[in-house]
Amino acid sequence: MNSFELHNPTKILFGAGKVKQLAELIEPYGNRILFVYGEGSIKRTGLYDEVLVQLNGIEASVYELSGVEPNPKLSKVNEGIEICKQEKIDFILAVGGGSVIDTGKAIAAGALYNGNVWDFIEYRAVIRDALPVGAVLTLAATGSEMNSGAVITDWDRKLKRSMVSKWLFPKFSILDPKLTLTVSPEQTVNGIIDMMSHVFEQYFSKTTDTPLQERFAESLLLTIIENGEKVITDSKNYEARANLLLAGTYALNGTLSTGVVSDWSSHSIEHELSAYYDIAHGKGLAVIFPNWMKYVYLERVDRFVQYATRVWNIDPVGKSDEQIALEGIEATRTYFKRIGAPTTLRELGVGNEKFDLMTEAAVKFGPIGTFKKLNKADIRSILESSL
Amino acid sequence: MNSFELHNPTKILFGAGKVKQLAELIEPYGNRILFVYGEGSIKRTGLYDEVLVQLNGIEASVYELSGVEPNPKLSKVNEGIEICKQEKIDFILAVGGGSVIDTGKAIAAGALYNGNVWDFIEYRAVIRDALPVGAVLTLAATGSEMNSGAVITDWDRKLKRSMVSKWLFPKFSILDPKLTLTVSPEQTVNGIIDMMSHVFEQYFSKTTDTPLQERFAESLLLTIIENGEKVITDSKNYEARANLLLAGTYALNGTLSTGVVSDWSSHSIEHELSAYYDIAHGKGLAVIFPNWMKYVYLERVDRFVQYATRVWNIDPVGKSDEQIALEGIEATRTYFKRIGAPTTLRELGVGNEKFDLMTEAAVKFGPIGTFKKLNKADIRSILESSL
Repeated sequence: MNSFELHNPTKILFGAGKVKQLAELIEPYGNRILFVYGEGSIKRTGLYDEVLVQLNGIEASVYELSGVEPNPKLSKVNEGIEICKQEKIDFILAVGGGSVIDTGKAIAAGALYNGNVWDFIEYRAVIRDALPVGAVLTLAATGSEMNSGAVITDWDRKLKRSMVSKWLFPKFSILDPKLTLTVSPEQTVNGIIDMMSHVFEQYFSKTTDTPLQERFAESLLLTIIENGEKVITDSKNYEARANLLLAGTYALNGTLSTGVVSDWSSHSIEHELSAYYDIAHGKGLAVIFPNWMKYVYLERVDRFVQYATRVWNIDPVGKSDEQIALEGIEATRTYFKRIGAPTTLRELGVGNEKFDLMTEAAVKFGPIGTFKKLNKADIRSILESSL
Repeated sequence: MNSFELHNPTKILFGAGKVKQLAELIEPYGNRILFVYGEGSIKRTGLYDEVLVQLNGIEASVYELSGVEPNPKLSKVNEGIEICKQEKIDFILAVGGGSVIDTGKAIAAGALYNGNVWDFIEYRAVIRDALPVGAVLTLAATGSEMNSGAVITDWDRKLKRSMVSKWLFPKFSILDPKLTLTVSPEQTVNGIIDMMSHVFEQYFSKTTDTPLQERFAESLLLTIIENGEKVITDSKNYEARANLLLAGTYALNGTLSTGVVSDWSSHSIEHELSAYYDIAHGKGLAVIFPNWMKYVYLERVDRFVQYATRVWNIDPVGKSDEQIALEGIEATRTYFKRIGAPTTLRELGVGNEKFDLMTEAAVKFGPIGTFKKLNKADIRSILESSL
């Protein structure tokens, strides 16, 4: 195990009806509120009205920033920053999934900075302060509700990138499984893939002697796999939705990465897909991940054997380690297919036309990955095998 | 799963040599320091000197409170509170195991209160503020380094009781596995039992539909069992010590109890043993826990079957649920014995003479336990079967 620091100050309120505590949660921070949300689903479900009732309870001046899309845009972030600066916003309330929360966090950092918020992404500046952010999560997937990262896309330059800072932890996040009962099957599947990918990225590591972190990762995968199937067949299953929601948070709240070197190269490759084709993050990951696994598994066949046997219950008797590992990878692909995720780029309408551009962009700052270092040719191979 | 709130603001610094960051960690809180420690082992290991070097680095005025014993005393807490009030202490630094950290936390609460600190334990007052506390942990066991509780014993009245408040989270805790390499075999075993018991108390729950929390608990047990055996046979095994240290923290930092009703009756019964006989907490738990399990397992045989099969790898084929459950309980006892823990009260020099007093004290505020409510007669049965 490596040395590490662990500090997660986000307060989680988990359970049905927790939105009723919103007013008391926000009040200490002031009452000039930027209310960030997506494309209107919160109006259909009634959550929008509930939030406004809470904000009225503290006589808040509410400024709305709506229309945040998946693969959230830098332009929307800049719009929010403008409002914060002009209206002297005290607090940012993000109500939605990962895109909305990430947008809220990026605005929070940019609002207290005299420069382009993209500077934080390209290391030209360091976040030294941010407006406080609170979140109401409506979708199990992101992990952003309890971590310090935010992923933003600059559409003009086809760049999907992340910023990380301790200032980006939400002050609180409300996780009400009921709010996720109405998530569409498609978005539910994308969320499942996203959170499984987060676990993979911390589990397939070269770091040794981390039995607790490995077992925690396997616990998350087993919980996601079991409860993922349940919600696919019964979307109103509160308990299964609750288990999935909690798993999504733990998949990326720092628990798995303590003392472990993570590898985010599959996420990076997918970010190129999303940036060039605007496909949902979860769909891209469903296609890329099994092919990444197959490309890298010989780097550490023991970890893949452990994955196959503990997570997928592959019977090891009479098989070589390689065989066991490959059966585990195949089980992953089969599961993705079974819950309705795509498994080829073709299904996403993606051909090989932009592979040059995408691989070039992926290695702009050098080879990616720690489990196996991937250069341009490696990434191309993974993309080719994903066609 | 039940609704819950989760908020753990403690910062963990984990790894060899992290004590070198002590000065920078304390500095923001001031430089009038109460330095709390135990009975001198930190002087033998050189840690005492290292801490003083750090405190000199911020030109601290250091007041020492030493001689904190296992089952830490209210009288020592009061001594510390007196120093804090007279010397206008800014920050409490606790260097040691659970007893030392618990003492530091109780002092922190009492220092800002005009009354008897025991009021917090008997609900006559609520903690509304506390001095900041930081910890350097020297023993894997307590969990106190990353939670909001403190257990104190009033020896005059034979009462071992706990206080809990969000104000009692340490600001930071330093976890250096190297500091635990010199822990004696006896204390190492006690620590293993203590942390396994913490897991049991949250795992044997009546709450249903908590697959993630259950698997996290099993992950901790498996990690503790495997690495516990390693450190017993090879006390200088850094990696095994590190895994045990991390497991001890996660066993009681709120992760397992999210959405779950815990049952602390074995701890309560053991507290009576410690209060009347001053035996080490871990030793008492080693004796009590398997007998508590055997007394209550029919309340939820499915959970005990899961425990037996997932944690102890008991082969279920051809056996009734009861048989499987009992084999799991027996495996627990066998493990305790194998690592050198006592399994009968006799070995601890405890007879049945004080059972009346102890059972009376245990139910002073009514029956205990949530998994199975235990009245005086139940507790007596468990104690009798522990002789």
